[in-house]
Amino acid sequence: MSFPQHDPADYRALRRAQGTRAIDVIDQRALPHASVEVRIADVDTAATAIAQMWVRGAPLIGAVGAYGLAMALGRDASDAALARAHAMLDATRPTAVNLRWALDRVRGAVLPLPAAQRADAAWREADAIAAEDEAINRAIGLHGLGLLEAIARRSGAPVQVMTHCNAGALATCGFGTATAPIFLAHAAGLPLHVWVSETRPRLQGANLTAWEMERRGVPYTLCADAASAALMRRGDVDAVLVGADRVARNGDVCNKIGTYDKALAAREHGVPLYVGVPSPTIDWSLPTGEAIPIEERSADEVLRVTGRDDAGQLRAVAIAPPGARAVNFAFDVTPARFVAGLLTERGVAAASADALAALFPERAALTPNPSPAMRDRGDASDEAGP
Amino acid sequence: MSFPQHDPADYRALRRAQGTRAIDVIDQRALPHASVEVRIADVDTAATAIAQMWVRGAPLIGAVGAYGLAMALGRDASDAALARAHAMLDATRPTAVNLRWALDRVRGAVLPLPAAQRADAAWREADAIAAEDEAINRAIGLHGLGLLEAIARRSGAPVQVMTHCNAGALATCGFGTATAPIFLAHAAGLPLHVWVSETRPRLQGANLTAWEMERRGVPYTLCADAASAALMRRGDVDAVLVGADRVARNGDVCNKIGTYDKALAAREHGVPLYVGVPSPTIDWSLPTGEAIPIEERSADEVLRVTGRDDAGQLRAVAIAPPGARAVNFAFDVTPARFVAGLLTERGVAAASADALAALFPERAALTPNPSPAMRDRGDASDEAGP
Repeated sequence: MSFPQHDPADYRALRRAQGTRAIDVIDQRALPHASVEVRIADVDTAATAIAQMWVRGAPLIGAVGAYGLAMALGRDASDAALARAHAMLDATRPTAVNLRWALDRVRGAVLPLPAAQRADAAWREADAIAAEDEAINRAIGLHGLGLLEAIARRSGAPVQVMTHCNAGALATCGFGTATAPIFLAHAAGLPLHVWVSETRPRLQGANLTAWEMERRGVPYTLCADAASAALMRRGDVDAVLVGADRVARNGDVCNKIGTYDKALAAREHGVPLYVGVPSPTIDWSLPTGEAIPIEERSADEVLRVTGRDDAGQLRAVAIAPPGARAVNFAFDVTPARFVAGLLTERGVAAASADALAALFPERAALTPNPSPAMRDRGDASDEAGP
Repeated sequence: MSFPQHDPADYRALRRAQGTRAIDVIDQRALPHASVEVRIADVDTAATAIAQMWVRGAPLIGAVGAYGLAMALGRDASDAALARAHAMLDATRPTAVNLRWALDRVRGAVLPLPAAQRADAAWREADAIAAEDEAINRAIGLHGLGLLEAIARRSGAPVQVMTHCNAGALATCGFGTATAPIFLAHAAGLPLHVWVSETRPRLQGANLTAWEMERRGVPYTLCADAASAALMRRGDVDAVLVGADRVARNGDVCNKIGTYDKALAAREHGVPLYVGVPSPTIDWSLPTGEAIPIEERSADEVLRVTGRDDAGQLRAVAIAPPGARAVNFAFDVTPARFVAGLLTERGVAAASADALAALFPERAALTPNPSPAMRDRGDASDEAGP
């Protein structure tokens, strides 16, 4: 499989390695300081890449998980091996529902087949997931572009978009969810400027989104996360545009920690908050966002900052006194009432159960509650930490 | 002059150097990684220390400015030299009003005197400013302690306080404004826990407040600034307690960037926001906070993070792609309606013109509008940055 070359900038978070059963991914831990591509050819490496965040972003880890499951089946296609690999990959990160969705989809595609056909079928399914994700990005971009064009018509000035974390090409198999409208608008010549909030602790805004804006020549300015409300109060933000790791049936949005802070500021200042939501990011089993398991990551991510030293080498520095403790919830939940619209591949939906069900009637109808995912996990509301 | 040794921890942001006309200050750029004290014995060094943030914190830079003016008068006590030194020190940082207040106070004390007596009088005035600041800290602490005790009585659990930036001993001549109630409560055995938000870009929370909590043994946990709203939503915060760089007559609070984000989250979740406000931080000339000049600092503070490398050396690392742009407003303004109370040395005031005037009738009555400071600066509302 080769991805269509729609992309104006020459980078892809994930590529099929030609002629082999492997994928090549950008090791995002090195960006923006170095360009490192790593080949993933076995399920253990795929799991490590997700858990250690060589790759991140809800759609991308879904695709890498799917490919990882296909790799496992190439070694052992038994039911037991399938179950083991599914469980191992699923355990890598708890919050983004795309991972579980992709793993379930590959499993569902191969389980009826004889073992000898499973690996091939899994690779085809993973390829389909990646190709669909790219198409979803494009559709989200077109729907979001309409919103940005409407803002531009009203304001007559460059559109000021604020984003958080990275819901860009580096988070997907295409050119991003939150960034898709931005990149399309820029390509179409719509004047715009992007406020990139740095996104502590892991700095995906400063490291990844800034890098993508540089690569594509989109005007942007980096800001501290805590500058968001002040910038909105100054009238410097027309819209907030973010991605999502999981969206509940009612439109509650789980996304990178700090999204909720922005939502509060956006509401106070009448700035619409739009969320790029591929349908695999919607968890139809959850009536609200309250039960979404929030990953708690290592305190070390708060206590140490990694960057490029004066010699150009990647280096971590400690920012707190020895012995300091830190909390590191990776995500927060923004209630649906703060969300102006969910940008899905089928159009812009209000953040409500009815609006989402109207856009995706077949999925809303099919999914029982609680879902198998929820039954496996028990009451996820207490799963906040390790 | 020697400061009374009330302090349970053996550090002081500013000490009079015994037997000399100099002060010793902690170089806060090195904390928490190294303990460096520097002697300031001339006005140029005093100005550099403020501008380059060896010292920071509204009350502390007021005192250092006062001492700097005294040092200048030791060399040349003419009216012209006084005016030059006043202007130079006043230009170092624009937002905290304590600096202008302290410089005006020293100038007012020495102007009527013959030149030969001015330096001595200026040193006495600077000593008085420092001693008063320490007394103010203690009074603020006692008033705030009452609030924390009331929370503890209601909740029956350790009091969860969130703070931002550093309004601690390192920001004052005593033991802090926002931290004074915390330190008194801890000393009194009241169980409490402090959420220290790291305060990008300069990380005063992670560098300074965390260090102070460590030194005093106060239980604390560091968090990313963007985790504030999520922590409040979880019900993990009983009160937010911050300092201020300038407060308008109506109770609008200018403080470290990110304070406003916390105020929005606090209101949403019914968490009271208290602000430690020494009366010299109140700008009686400003009817509201809209006209407070907001310092815009170098983008480099956002683009590079300084910390301790694995060899224990201070080192800066770049976190964004080469060529990245960043905005760096150092402060924001929180409207009075978000503030549950202003902790002044005379008691807790509602954040309103009437309540402040009732506590400080002599100052509210005396001050014309606009003040000399405002006339000098023109319309400060457009002075957001270079």
